[in-house]
Amino acid sequence: MPHADMKSSKFMRTAVQVPDAQAKIAARASSGSTELVRLELAHGRTLAETVHAPHPYPFFRRSGMDGYAIVSGDTLHASSDEQIWLRVIDEIPCGYTSDQIVVEGTAARIMTGAQVPEGADAVVMLEMTESREQDGQHWIGLKRSIQPNANITPIGLEVQEGDLLLESGTTIRAGEQSVLATFGVAHVRVYRRPKVAIFATGTELLDVDEPLQPGRIRNSNSYMLRSLVVEAGGEPVMYGSIADDVAAARAKVEEAVRDNDIVVTTGGVSVGDYDIMGDLVRESDVDMLFNKVTMRPGSVTTAAVVNGKLLFALSGNPGACFVGFSLFVWPTIRMMQSDPHPYLEEWTAIMDTEYTKVNNFTRFVRGRIQIREGTVYAAPAPSRVDESSVMITIKDSDCLIVVPPERKGIAAGEKVRIIKLPQGR
Amino acid sequence: MPHADMKSSKFMRTAVQVPDAQAKIAARASSGSTELVRLELAHGRTLAETVHAPHPYPFFRRSGMDGYAIVSGDTLHASSDEQIWLRVIDEIPCGYTSDQIVVEGTAARIMTGAQVPEGADAVVMLEMTESREQDGQHWIGLKRSIQPNANITPIGLEVQEGDLLLESGTTIRAGEQSVLATFGVAHVRVYRRPKVAIFATGTELLDVDEPLQPGRIRNSNSYMLRSLVVEAGGEPVMYGSIADDVAAARAKVEEAVRDNDIVVTTGGVSVGDYDIMGDLVRESDVDMLFNKVTMRPGSVTTAAVVNGKLLFALSGNPGACFVGFSLFVWPTIRMMQSDPHPYLEEWTAIMDTEYTKVNNFTRFVRGRIQIREGTVYAAPAPSRVDESSVMITIKDSDCLIVVPPERKGIAAGEKVRIIKLPQGR
Repeated sequence: MPHADMKSSKFMRTAVQVPDAQAKIAARASSGSTELVRLELAHGRTLAETVHAPHPYPFFRRSGMDGYAIVSGDTLHASSDEQIWLRVIDEIPCGYTSDQIVVEGTAARIMTGAQVPEGADAVVMLEMTESREQDGQHWIGLKRSIQPNANITPIGLEVQEGDLLLESGTTIRAGEQSVLATFGVAHVRVYRRPKVAIFATGTELLDVDEPLQPGRIRNSNSYMLRSLVVEAGGEPVMYGSIADDVAAARAKVEEAVRDNDIVVTTGGVSVGDYDIMGDLVRESDVDMLFNKVTMRPGSVTTAAVVNGKLLFALSGNPGACFVGFSLFVWPTIRMMQSDPHPYLEEWTAIMDTEYTKVNNFTRFVRGRIQIREGTVYAAPAPSRVDESSVMITIKDSDCLIVVPPERKGIAAGEKVRIIKLPQGR
Repeated sequence: MPHADMKSSKFMRTAVQVPDAQAKIAARASSGSTELVRLELAHGRTLAETVHAPHPYPFFRRSGMDGYAIVSGDTLHASSDEQIWLRVIDEIPCGYTSDQIVVEGTAARIMTGAQVPEGADAVVMLEMTESREQDGQHWIGLKRSIQPNANITPIGLEVQEGDLLLESGTTIRAGEQSVLATFGVAHVRVYRRPKVAIFATGTELLDVDEPLQPGRIRNSNSYMLRSLVVEAGGEPVMYGSIADDVAAARAKVEEAVRDNDIVVTTGGVSVGDYDIMGDLVRESDVDMLFNKVTMRPGSVTTAAVVNGKLLFALSGNPGACFVGFSLFVWPTIRMMQSDPHPYLEEWTAIMDTEYTKVNNFTRFVRGRIQIREGTVYAAPAPSRVDESSVMITIKDSDCLIVVPPERKGIAAGEKVRIIKLPQGR
C-alpha cells in the first residue's frame, strides 16, 4: 500500500545536527548575480567587487590648520626674545592652489584642508602669529621655532595608491560610502538582493485584516519573515497563505521556485495527517537536504533543492519559524551575496538566571543580552510562560541562548554560547 | 568696525560639554507627525500608537500535539496492564472546529494548532495510542494515564485581552510584525520619517564622479551622512555641495529649512576666514544652541534652531562629522519618532590596547569591540595613522571609545566607556 508507506515514512525522519544541516545548505548556496547601482542608492547593499585605491589619500599635502604656510628653517632662531617676520605672498582658501612658491622670508595664508604651496614645509597656527601692515605689504611675526612638517598631512598618509580599500562581500554602510565617494566610485557593483518568496500553508490561516474565527489564527509568520528577509539584505516577495491543498500548494511552490532565488514556507512540516509541505517535498522531484534537525524549537525544519533553488519549509510555530530562519535562511541570503561571515555572530555570555528546561535536542532559547561592567550576560526573554512556541517574546529578544542537549539545566553564572540576533532597523 | 567685531567673535566661542549640548538639543526636538501605513510596509518604522491586545492569545484552547482530544478522567486507571479504548467521533484539522462534544468514552482526532473540542480536557500524542477498526467504528487504545490539561494551550496563555503589546516609540521589526499581524493590525500608525536635508559646503568639494584636481577632494560626507540618516530611520534628502558663497549658502539653507525637518551641513564651521556656515549662523535670524563642544574631534560642531527646525553644522573633517552625527543628529532623528532610548547605547568595556593620546577635551576614538569569553574589549580601529581626522577607519569601527579629558592615557586592561555604533544594514 503506497499510501500507508508514505504515511509511515513521515515518522522516519533522520535528524541531523544543526552544523551539519548548515553545511548541507552551504554546499548548495552559491553567490547570485550582480548589478551596478549609483553610490547614493548603495546603502545596505553588498559589494560584488574588491576595491583598491586608485590614488593616494590625501592626494596632496594638506594643511591641518588655519594659519600660514612657511619655510620652517626661517623660524630656527625665533623665540619670545627674537620675533621673526615673514612677508605674506598669497592667500589659499580650501579648494584653491597657489601659483606662488613660498621661499625663505615669505609665508602664505592657508586654510584647514587646503593644499600646502610649493616651497613651504610647515604650517603655523594663525593664533601663534602677529599681523602687521607695512608699505602696502602684509607681514606676520612669529616668536617660536616651528618643526619641519608641522601641521601638514603628507600625501598618502591614510591610504597609498593600490591599497586594498574594500573587499567583495562587504556590506555598504556609512564608512564604506565615505571611502567609495572619496575615491570616485560613483557607480558600484553589488549583488542583487536575493528574491525570497514567502508563503504560509494552513487552512487555519486568516489574513491580517480578517476578523478572528473559532479555531483559526492570523498569518503572522509571513510578516515576521518579511522583516527578517529585509534585514538579511534580501528582497521579500509575499505569496500570502495557501490552504491545505496539495495541488494548489504544488502550483504555488513551482511558481515561487521559478520566479525567486529562495523559497521559504511556514507551516505544514510536522508529522500530522494534514502536513502539505511534507507531502509535497516527498512527492516532488526535489533533492531533500534534511527534514529533521536535532534542535528545539523547529526540529521538523526541512530544506531541499528544487530546480537548483533552495527551499526552506519552516515550522508554522512562530518561535520555531524564527529560529529556523536565523539558523538556515539568514546565512543563505548572506551567502548569496558572498558575505564572508554569513552566519549570525556567536558570543560567550554569562547566564543571568538559571535555565532548567532540558531536552535531548539542542535548545535555542530566545533571550536578552545585558552588558554590565564589561561583562556579557544573557537571560531568557521574560514571558508569562516558558514555551518555545511562544510568539510574544520574539520582539523582546536580541539573542538565542544555545542550551546543549544535556540532562541538566544551566545555573546562573555559568557560561553559555549565544547567537546574536540582527539589530538593524 | 562691525566686520572686525564679527571676525573676532569667531574666536570667542564658549565650549559646552557633550551632555549639555545634547540637553540643549533635546529641549528643542519634538516628535514629528504620523501616518498610517500597511503593516507589510511598516518594517523599520516607529510606532506612533501604543497597542493593547484586542483579544487573548491564543484565542481558543489550542492543541499542542498531533493526537487525540480526550476526557482525561477516562484514563485514570489506564496502564500497561489495562488498556482503555475510546471511540473516535471526529477529526479536527487545523483551522476547523468540531460540532461534536467529546464525552466520556470518546475521543477526537486533532492536529497541532487546532481548537480542542468541547468536552475534551486533554490531548494525547498520536504515538501513545493504538488504532483499531471495529464494526465500522474507529477506536484508539491507551495504556497510560493522562493528566488534565495535557498538551492543551489555554486561552490567553501568552497574552490576556487588554495586555500592553507594544509601546509608542518602538521600532517595528520581525517580532513586532508578528505581534501586529497576530492581533489584526493591518494598518499601523507610525511616525513619518523625519526628512533630513544633507549638504556640504566648500569650494574644495568635487562631485563623486568628477576627476580629482589639485587641492580639491570629493564630497564624501554627504554620502556618509545619507547612510547614517537611513540607519537612524530618517529620510535623507541630498542637496549636494555648495561653494563658499554666503548668499548662495543662505538661499540653500533657507530652502532646506523650509522643505525638511532637520538640516545637516558639513564643512565651514571652523574659525578660518572662509567658514560660510559660521558666518551664516551668526548673521541669520537663528537661535544658536551652541557653536563649540568640549570634544575631539568635532569641537566646532554647531547646532541652531532656524524657523523652528534644528540645523546642525558639522565639521567637514569626516571623522568629526561622523562623531557629531552620532552624538547629536542620531538622537534628534530618534526623538522626532518618540524613541524612548534616542541615544546610542553605552557600554563599559576593557581597553585591549593602551591609548596614550590625551586632550583637554573628551575624545571620541573610533574603535572596535571584541567579545571574548563573556568580556567586552575595545581597541582603537587600526589605521596607518592615529588622527581623529582620518576617514578610512570609519568603516572599521563599531564603537566610539570615550577618552576622558585627563592628562594621562588609558592603559590596556582599564575600563572605558564606549558608545555602540548602529549595526544595521
